[in-house]
Amino acid sequence: MENKVSESYIEGRNPVIEAFRSGRPIDKLFILDGCNDGPMMTIKREAKKRDVFIKYVAKERLDQMSQTGMHQGVIAYAAAYEYSELDDIFELAESKNEPPFVYILDNIEDPHNLGAIIRTANLSGAHGVIIPKNRAVGLTSTVARTSAGALNYTPVVKVTNISKTIEELKSRGMWFVCADMDGDLMYDLNLEGSIGLVIGNEGEGVSRLVKEKCDYIAAIPMKGDIDSLNASVAAGVLGFEIVRQRMRKK
Amino acid sequence: MENKVSESYIEGRNPVIEAFRSGRPIDKLFILDGCNDGPMMTIKREAKKRDVFIKYVAKERLDQMSQTGMHQGVIAYAAAYEYSELDDIFELAESKNEPPFVYILDNIEDPHNLGAIIRTANLSGAHGVIIPKNRAVGLTSTVARTSAGALNYTPVVKVTNISKTIEELKSRGMWFVCADMDGDLMYDLNLEGSIGLVIGNEGEGVSRLVKEKCDYIAAIPMKGDIDSLNASVAAGVLGFEIVRQRMRKK
Repeated sequence: MENKVSESYIEGRNPVIEAFRSGRPIDKLFILDGCNDGPMMTIKREAKKRDVFIKYVAKERLDQMSQTGMHQGVIAYAAAYEYSELDDIFELAESKNEPPFVYILDNIEDPHNLGAIIRTANLSGAHGVIIPKNRAVGLTSTVARTSAGALNYTPVVKVTNISKTIEELKSRGMWFVCADMDGDLMYDLNLEGSIGLVIGNEGEGVSRLVKEKCDYIAAIPMKGDIDSLNASVAAGVLGFEIVRQRMRKK
Repeated sequence: MENKVSESYIEGRNPVIEAFRSGRPIDKLFILDGCNDGPMMTIKREAKKRDVFIKYVAKERLDQMSQTGMHQGVIAYAAAYEYSELDDIFELAESKNEPPFVYILDNIEDPHNLGAIIRTANLSGAHGVIIPKNRAVGLTSTVARTSAGALNYTPVVKVTNISKTIEELKSRGMWFVCADMDGDLMYDLNLEGSIGLVIGNEGEGVSRLVKEKCDYIAAIPMKGDIDSLNASVAAGVLGFEIVRQRMRKK
């Protein structure tokens, strides 16, 4: 699988409309608050059709973000890499004759963490990474660089609603474990089989709704004085506990 | 243990001489190449006495680094936090009635990695982190921030020569394992007892001289398409394998 690299920002009404029409993946739209003329309504309609997140901002914010000085009230943030579909994950698992193993990121915000987790997902033998459409960071060039090439091999899927995706994957035979300090010690859980590992946001952890969908809550043993591990380190420690248990089974 | 925060750059001859005389810890000196007048010779003598690394640079480099525009041919880079001594590590282990457990970083260059590893060291119950004096990154404010408070609890010791420090610690009953892909699978090694975990540089891994001093070489099982994990993730995966084995023993 080869993902395509492309630019990050698209500014101005016609370029943004053109990007939508060409099917180019858009992560987010920044639109001047209160701007409702014809072309802008076209842009909003296209965004709604493709389920793209719109953020309404003040002129100062757009001026600050603009690299061309010609934003005309709209800036689109395009994915640096193209996203995969859920089926790509299942196909990859099947082609390797392995039970599916995915990382689900519940609002990771730091691109260095996202890149490092995609790198870890690849090396722990996972078949894909699932990220949410809104708020969280997307596949920017920083993510691509930090992933150390893993983005070229590991499918990354963007979904509208993490809870609903977990339900859908459960109906396809997967089960889910999330990381949280108040969970059961990870060594005491059986983490084999078709598994989704859910990693929460850097500050807030896994959201309540997502946590309720998980079958198990796994805790890393904490021996120190501070609160929690860095999100990408926690993902690595839990991901390789899954690897250890999968190897033990063989 | 409380480490003291302070500024990062000290510019100009008198301020640098004053910093040396007050005993303030200096990480590195940048000196104008070919500059050998009286005050500069005093600075070089003080630096030699305290084993501070000197980098000779061109005027353009100093001009670029300078925040005051008054460097007078010398800029000192001061630690944002104070360093501990090897004995602090042994005292902390003794106070907890645990066999010593340290992370030894063989030239980690990225401050985010150093901060994340100090954070991981704290939470995996390690009693200290050892870093080399030259080349590698020191305790800057970025490191402090990324450590999420761990710098206030976990002693960080700066040593002149990692290989010699390993020899010294061996004579005090410790033994050493380094991370490398061509090692033995980490689950097959006995990682209990008084242990030093050696993590190599982001690009080059553990240096040959340091590797030769290690008792074991441990490999994380690699299942993917790319080369290696991020250094701080690798440190977390290996560090918590040590935690797992220590817990199993109880």
